[in-house]
Amino acid sequence: MTGAATTYDDYFQRALDGLKADGSYRHFAELERQAGRFPKAYHHGMGREVTVWCSNDYLGMGQHPSVLSAMHASLDHSGAGAGGTRNISGTNHEHVELERELADLHGKEAALLFNSGYLSNWATLGTIAARMKDCVVLSDAANHASMIEGIRHSRAEKQIFRHNDVADLEARLKALPRDVPKIIAFESVYSMDGDIAPIEEICDLADRYGAMTYLDEVHAVGLYGHQGGGVAEQRGLSHRLSVIEGTLGKGFGVVGGYIAGSAALCDFVRSFASGFIFSTALPPMIAAGALASIRHLRGSQDERERHQARVAYLRAALDRAGIPHMDNPSHIVPVMVGDATRCRALSDLLLSRFGHYIQPINYPTVARGTERLRITPGPLHSTADIDDLVAALAALWQEQGMAAAA
Amino acid sequence: MTGAATTYDDYFQRALDGLKADGSYRHFAELERQAGRFPKAYHHGMGREVTVWCSNDYLGMGQHPSVLSAMHASLDHSGAGAGGTRNISGTNHEHVELERELADLHGKEAALLFNSGYLSNWATLGTIAARMKDCVVLSDAANHASMIEGIRHSRAEKQIFRHNDVADLEARLKALPRDVPKIIAFESVYSMDGDIAPIEEICDLADRYGAMTYLDEVHAVGLYGHQGGGVAEQRGLSHRLSVIEGTLGKGFGVVGGYIAGSAALCDFVRSFASGFIFSTALPPMIAAGALASIRHLRGSQDERERHQARVAYLRAALDRAGIPHMDNPSHIVPVMVGDATRCRALSDLLLSRFGHYIQPINYPTVARGTERLRITPGPLHSTADIDDLVAALAALWQEQGMAAAA
Repeated sequence: MTGAATTYDDYFQRALDGLKADGSYRHFAELERQAGRFPKAYHHGMGREVTVWCSNDYLGMGQHPSVLSAMHASLDHSGAGAGGTRNISGTNHEHVELERELADLHGKEAALLFNSGYLSNWATLGTIAARMKDCVVLSDAANHASMIEGIRHSRAEKQIFRHNDVADLEARLKALPRDVPKIIAFESVYSMDGDIAPIEEICDLADRYGAMTYLDEVHAVGLYGHQGGGVAEQRGLSHRLSVIEGTLGKGFGVVGGYIAGSAALCDFVRSFASGFIFSTALPPMIAAGALASIRHLRGSQDERERHQARVAYLRAALDRAGIPHMDNPSHIVPVMVGDATRCRALSDLLLSRFGHYIQPINYPTVARGTERLRITPGPLHSTADIDDLVAALAALWQEQGMAAAA
Repeated sequence: MTGAATTYDDYFQRALDGLKADGSYRHFAELERQAGRFPKAYHHGMGREVTVWCSNDYLGMGQHPSVLSAMHASLDHSGAGAGGTRNISGTNHEHVELERELADLHGKEAALLFNSGYLSNWATLGTIAARMKDCVVLSDAANHASMIEGIRHSRAEKQIFRHNDVADLEARLKALPRDVPKIIAFESVYSMDGDIAPIEEICDLADRYGAMTYLDEVHAVGLYGHQGGGVAEQRGLSHRLSVIEGTLGKGFGVVGGYIAGSAALCDFVRSFASGFIFSTALPPMIAAGALASIRHLRGSQDERERHQARVAYLRAALDRAGIPHMDNPSHIVPVMVGDATRCRALSDLLLSRFGHYIQPINYPTVARGTERLRITPGPLHSTADIDDLVAALAALWQEQGMAAAA
């Protein structure tokens, strides 16, 4: 490499060409969300309105009137941005209120906001695991990239236990010295397969072997539990977790991430996590919108009930049509394709011919051979929307000569 | 450590006690920004309105009518959140428009948005330096934490050159093999001292030794250059930098970070940076607000001229009052105190007695012995505000028996 700009660009371009050659280059769909019309959106590439089936605004709270009006009001009251890091003029009343609400939602002493869920996982695990001498992190094999990068950043010892495998986790815990700090890091709902962790058994092991528990509930907060506190709340286990990490950008429909835990733990992360300390705080209006969304979902079962009903309806319709989908106890419906090129082709045909937008999920997000269309039906998808989608899938399944579900 | 929850909490608490003992524990001021009244804000702890002197909303764009109206309109049109990562249903028309505008602002082929400036530095340096085999990063000694963490994350070889020292940088470049990839990472305006890098000389060295240049302009975009393209634009050097990194949260008054560079480089980071790929996109309305802010500041010199005039007025008033401040060519006015306890005490007295809020800047943000009150006057501070602040500082300086400026 000679160092000329073109040489660096050549290097970048070759790496991109590699992605294109193996089918993993990503094309972003340019959408225009339309409040009041979710899950419809205008697709700029297609020049038409489409139905979105792969959003993580799971409950449609991104267009909820109480969220929008709280944001309008805060924008008028406090302006566009926070104006600084949390320490240097950036802490606004709305942040303090939201952190209090999040702590309360999860039955914890405290909570701490981050600019994204990615940052909350990365900064929290990266800080705690780095600073506790000799800490070992036991990490579920299917954990999200943000946890993996946080653990990597900490340079603590990492042990990967088999996905949701309590026996493997126990064997690893048992083999570790009793007196080293340990963190078990895992998720409740896993994003791509939609399966759910054995949270209670993992907490039992944590107690037995003196480990902290770090639970990522980003695909569950707002959606599960009587108040939307996630699977831990639903199962009555919130009090047994050291850290519950969540997002404001999926079920709650806005943006941002957080942790909830003991006062000492949150204060520790607040005081030592570089990714928290040196980031401009989220705009007050974002905090106000998230607060309105959480408060609404704590008091209303309607969205959660309709959500689960839509999921059940979609699954039953797929079954009737013989479309293979992975069974799981959550709201995530992975329609299995098993081939990257075909997965992209199906996604393209669904969009161009039928106006249904489902991003293909290929390697490296999922393992090769398990490529899929990941469908996340929401309470705002109508019965007609679902019938329409399943009819389109059935037509393509037949046309492409794909195997029906057994 | 036995692993019981209380034992972990004890560990966290001891670390916090250590911060309290050495005076570096941070107390966040709880503010309520009031659009239309910047730089005034309601201080919840004090129960009164105060004047904020330490905001990074440098130009007051966070209350600019065109920013607020663009955000209101986008909120009505597209709702609260983006609904997904950029790849999975999260790319909205506003993101695409904003990236185009940012590329144009910096005279680059492309730009890429991140949820924060921290993430843009961390993810970009962390990705590029990790993936280019044998890459060496030459990093200015005063670089921001987000760059340091990104370089650390990459595990590439790092060489720290003395702050703004072109001779030291050249000696290091000369000693490296010609054919290893090199990145020179530096800032234009350094946040705490307000000094400015010798950008042209560094670009000359980059050319001579075949290095990429990575320039953090977060404390400069919006503020410098005829269109607000930063110091590189002001000095006619934008085209010589491989990457210009900026923020939407300071001069532009909203939140978020970005890079601008060649199409191949931005596409490479887009395709490989975990912190980009796996983050929920910024809400469309944030992108819309930033876009309005950038467009306004590209066409208007008024804010920049008033800003510089206010800075000059404050410096002259401090000089007349004998208050020692660090001289520099930027808008950052560090009033030097040189002692952590006294710095906090002065900040407390300014607030409680005079209603001026300036967060004390102590170790580890700055070196011990260089503790300071970092003042960032803006175009919205009135002459009376500044006179008032300087009178308060003068009174405290005398009362506390502090040395006047020579």
